[in-house]
Amino acid sequence: MADRPNSQNLIGKLRRVLLGAPIPSSKAHHERLSPLLGLPVFSSDALSSVAYATEAVLGILILGQTVNRELLHYQFFISLAICILIIVVGISYNQTIHAYPQGGGSYIVASENLGETPGLLAAGSILVDYILTVSVSTVAGVTAITSAYPTLTPYLVPMCLFCVACVAWANLRGVRESGSVFAVPTYAFIFGIFVLIIFGSYKAFTTPAVHQEVVAPGLLGKEASFAFLFIILRAFAAGCTALTGIEAVSDGVQAFKPPESHNASITLRIMTVILTLMFLGTGYLAMHLPTLTFHDANDPQYRTLVAQIAQWVFGYQTKPFLFIQFSTAAILILAANTAFADFPRLSSFLARDGYVPRPLARQGDRLVFHNGIMFLAIAAGFIIWYFKGRLDGLLPLYAVGVFTAFTLSQFGMVKHWFRLKGPHWKQSATINMIGAVLTLIVTAIILVTKFLDGAWIVTILLALQFILFKSVKRRYLSIAKQLAIGNTPPKMPAAHVSILLVPRVHRGILAALEYALLLDLQCRAVHVAINKKALPEVMATWERYGEGVPLDVLNTPYRSLIQPVLEYVDRLLEENPDRIITVIVPEAVASTWLHSLLQENVANQLKQALGLRKNVVVTNVRYFLD
Amino acid sequence: MADRPNSQNLIGKLRRVLLGAPIPSSKAHHERLSPLLGLPVFSSDALSSVAYATEAVLGILILGQTVNRELLHYQFFISLAICILIIVVGISYNQTIHAYPQGGGSYIVASENLGETPGLLAAGSILVDYILTVSVSTVAGVTAITSAYPTLTPYLVPMCLFCVACVAWANLRGVRESGSVFAVPTYAFIFGIFVLIIFGSYKAFTTPAVHQEVVAPGLLGKEASFAFLFIILRAFAAGCTALTGIEAVSDGVQAFKPPESHNASITLRIMTVILTLMFLGTGYLAMHLPTLTFHDANDPQYRTLVAQIAQWVFGYQTKPFLFIQFSTAAILILAANTAFADFPRLSSFLARDGYVPRPLARQGDRLVFHNGIMFLAIAAGFIIWYFKGRLDGLLPLYAVGVFTAFTLSQFGMVKHWFRLKGPHWKQSATINMIGAVLTLIVTAIILVTKFLDGAWIVTILLALQFILFKSVKRRYLSIAKQLAIGNTPPKMPAAHVSILLVPRVHRGILAALEYALLLDLQCRAVHVAINKKALPEVMATWERYGEGVPLDVLNTPYRSLIQPVLEYVDRLLEENPDRIITVIVPEAVASTWLHSLLQENVANQLKQALGLRKNVVVTNVRYFLD
Repeated sequence: MADRPNSQNLIGKLRRVLLGAPIPSSKAHHERLSPLLGLPVFSSDALSSVAYATEAVLGILILGQTVNRELLHYQFFISLAICILIIVVGISYNQTIHAYPQGGGSYIVASENLGETPGLLAAGSILVDYILTVSVSTVAGVTAITSAYPTLTPYLVPMCLFCVACVAWANLRGVRESGSVFAVPTYAFIFGIFVLIIFGSYKAFTTPAVHQEVVAPGLLGKEASFAFLFIILRAFAAGCTALTGIEAVSDGVQAFKPPESHNASITLRIMTVILTLMFLGTGYLAMHLPTLTFHDANDPQYRTLVAQIAQWVFGYQTKPFLFIQFSTAAILILAANTAFADFPRLSSFLARDGYVPRPLARQGDRLVFHNGIMFLAIAAGFIIWYFKGRLDGLLPLYAVGVFTAFTLSQFGMVKHWFRLKGPHWKQSATINMIGAVLTLIVTAIILVTKFLDGAWIVTILLALQFILFKSVKRRYLSIAKQLAIGNTPPKMPAAHVSILLVPRVHRGILAALEYALLLDLQCRAVHVAINKKALPEVMATWERYGEGVPLDVLNTPYRSLIQPVLEYVDRLLEENPDRIITVIVPEAVASTWLHSLLQENVANQLKQALGLRKNVVVTNVRYFLD
Repeated sequence: MADRPNSQNLIGKLRRVLLGAPIPSSKAHHERLSPLLGLPVFSSDALSSVAYATEAVLGILILGQTVNRELLHYQFFISLAICILIIVVGISYNQTIHAYPQGGGSYIVASENLGETPGLLAAGSILVDYILTVSVSTVAGVTAITSAYPTLTPYLVPMCLFCVACVAWANLRGVRESGSVFAVPTYAFIFGIFVLIIFGSYKAFTTPAVHQEVVAPGLLGKEASFAFLFIILRAFAAGCTALTGIEAVSDGVQAFKPPESHNASITLRIMTVILTLMFLGTGYLAMHLPTLTFHDANDPQYRTLVAQIAQWVFGYQTKPFLFIQFSTAAILILAANTAFADFPRLSSFLARDGYVPRPLARQGDRLVFHNGIMFLAIAAGFIIWYFKGRLDGLLPLYAVGVFTAFTLSQFGMVKHWFRLKGPHWKQSATINMIGAVLTLIVTAIILVTKFLDGAWIVTILLALQFILFKSVKRRYLSIAKQLAIGNTPPKMPAAHVSILLVPRVHRGILAALEYALLLDLQCRAVHVAINKKALPEVMATWERYGEGVPLDVLNTPYRSLIQPVLEYVDRLLEENPDRIITVIVPEAVASTWLHSLLQENVANQLKQALGLRKNVVVTNVRYFLD
């Protein structure tokens, strides 16, 4: 509830130092992007998956190695299949770009065409996946660094949490999606991977083929009993994490320079081609590595697949090797950053539509949805900590959400074409139908093969989230109904009495009495006799200064200040339920926090205790102590 | 701030279950005690020191053992000296009983006769010593148990903390100082120790003398360089912990049956005799133990001195052995409990006199000073945890406070006799003068010999506490001056305007509008335009339902709700500083806690933000959601 840009207290000052000065709403413009700058802004999530997707495929295939020693060779065919999937989904989304030039996120496309339930399901899936994007990208980014500097391995989890905190902090400060800032790491990464693929392919061609040695302590033969097809499908499902983020361009068409759709479409096509080439290239090189190693992420011997390839091609800790590792880490952190921009934005859409608590729709004074950012950081941090920074534990949860959203969005597009029936609608509908059916099949494969490994968690989460969305919406509808003005605006009771609490008689109380008399209501003073010895003095002083207002003395057998007042108010309400009671609570305000410890203020306690009593208004008259 | 006996919320219910139903003030009577029941009530602290005082003396003497192999034999002479001190102090306090039949705690005697500063010093010393009494007694009690069951030794600190928590809990529930409940463990302990001394003395007489073997790993020769006299004085200072609690009877004269002073005096004399005998008896037996062992308290081989004696006399884990260990533990826990009754009571005296924050003078609904109890439990628990449950670390802090208070109290008594000059006043003054000088010397010895071991901590604490007392008093005096009514009671400005906050226009807001109109003041409605799109609708609805009250629309460049309202209020105050402004804040009240998460309430934020602006009153008009 950060709400005081000019707060003069300590917390306010700390906020300013940490988060910077407030940003006015008028600054909420977006720079318009060319495809050259649009690519880095929207593709970091998709492209960065090259850093872990192939490794994920191999990580599954290795499990069946004892049954079929040639199983690892299927990796390339699986990668090919995934590339085809990338192209199909890319073409599908290219249509969304043209159909929804205002931005066609899955939530919008699904809810507009298929209705509320599919829309919420899509939104929920995307939200869960944003959380996982932060976790997965951060972990993958940090392991890129620990692969280069194995002595850092023991600090894997703390480093990940530190990264999440930094990105969250940057977002709370309100980083803008600035194309030029994004461009450096993204193009560095693309450049690095392509150089790696070219040099690596040359080396693979010129080196005589040897049988690949596999080092995988604790993994070989662990799940040898699985059937061949199941292992292949599971490996395919693991590789599908490569597709996360591919929909990003279609969400942000409006960020491009005019003609927006055209530029967005070019960007999407370039991204698809680059992603396919990088994915295939690393898969090809993985096959030609003389030694493939699989260690636990917390083992200092662990190297990411990309690091193993770069080590083979350029040598360990050489300059090109380090360039690749650092640019990989940078693009992965960018991907996490993108989720930090998108999660709160989608939450705020849902909050505006009344499906999540409205405070998530509040923009803070730095023009960011701080509640959403905080929530995302905590959730992603918890997941990293829970999985001890191990990607192989995290990845099975990933991609379920994204493919659910893909499927719903594609089916929504099919419906869209059927509704509008514009030119070439049959062709468009067919393309989206192919995408929809394909992603539906992939969703099913992912769910079945990854279910026991963690997809069940996501399934339960999605269900709970859906229930939450629905019940929050129901609650807001009920509130709106209760607050509707209707034909008869509310009437307040005309009888009105004010009660002034008098703990002792001093200047502060007399000021409150003046205020009470100013209101020109029937007024009664009330004293709770906690200290019986002081009672005669209180009564005598009131007699003198009370300006004729009657003083009621309340006994308090249990020494409570609040209870007798509550009973007194209840008695007044019982006497005449059609009366409104203003309780005037004098409150001492000390000039410093330390001094306020010396005061006993009951105003808030009393307000709390008055709870659900209707027709009671609490008024604070404050008096000030230097 | 526990203040709602009938709270219907979850916390309120939990309070009831844990602490029981409220106790009315009328139940605050005290049973009147005979000397037979008065002894257990007032002597647990003093008598229980037998469990550790002799051990503390030996623990110091052992340090000089390599210099002088006969050093341990001096223990008996030191014990004799301490017994003389006990008798002198006992006689001194016997005079206080007769001079202050209303109860003569050190705070009262010192402040009445010597003035504010000595009084506060005495009170502070006693408060610090109460905290240490809880720590020392609990640790000594638990080590009595671990001496019997060494397998429990690893849980020493958790067991201590659990005991402190239990005693605190019992006191929060409001245990009464019931003589009959106290009698069983106290008389069991006295009985056990006397049986031990009698059987032990018989065994010592009938067993041929052998040279005592000393087992003290890690201690022997550790501080061999100390001078002989210093070691002796330091051992004496360590033994002075036996005197803690000896003043208890004089504090509670009014708890005795009439004639109060007479009965109290009998009780004090009996206690002095029993304490002297037990202390000398255990000291005598310690000399005749064939083997004396000194282990670290966290070593399973550790046995308290009393346990070593009981083991020698009765055998390990025999029934008499266990009886002695358990009754020792019981009386020590009683001693801790006594501090829990006395610390909050003394704090409440200080709070009433304005030297500590007044909330410490509040009795909760169970007739106990809950704030003081909580503070004591946390402080004592922290000390136990910090010293890892080791008595030899804790004891050097102990007794500084108690002897400071003794000295001040005795000098106060001397002044008392000089002031009153009643019959035999010279004799009485002489007795107290001897006590005062003796305790002053002992205080000096304790301070010098224990200073580096921990007494410096207490010295600093006492100084800080003294500064706190003084500055709190100064603050309360300043408040009283500010709030004095004086000759001209405060006048409120006559110009009065009310501001109604209108976030949207609905039934709740219209009810607040009705209330605002009821006040019959000049009223203005204010809308903060966070959502510019909704503005035309808000204005149109207000036009229709606003009953002619003008609506001011405030821009909010930084999306803050609070800031524009503050600026608006400031503008109004600037226009006419002699005007009072009532800010009416409509507030939605949800029926459940979960539902309240869906609301954005700004009332408290606004109240906070209005901070030190004078002439501004905040009124909450609540509307209710089912």
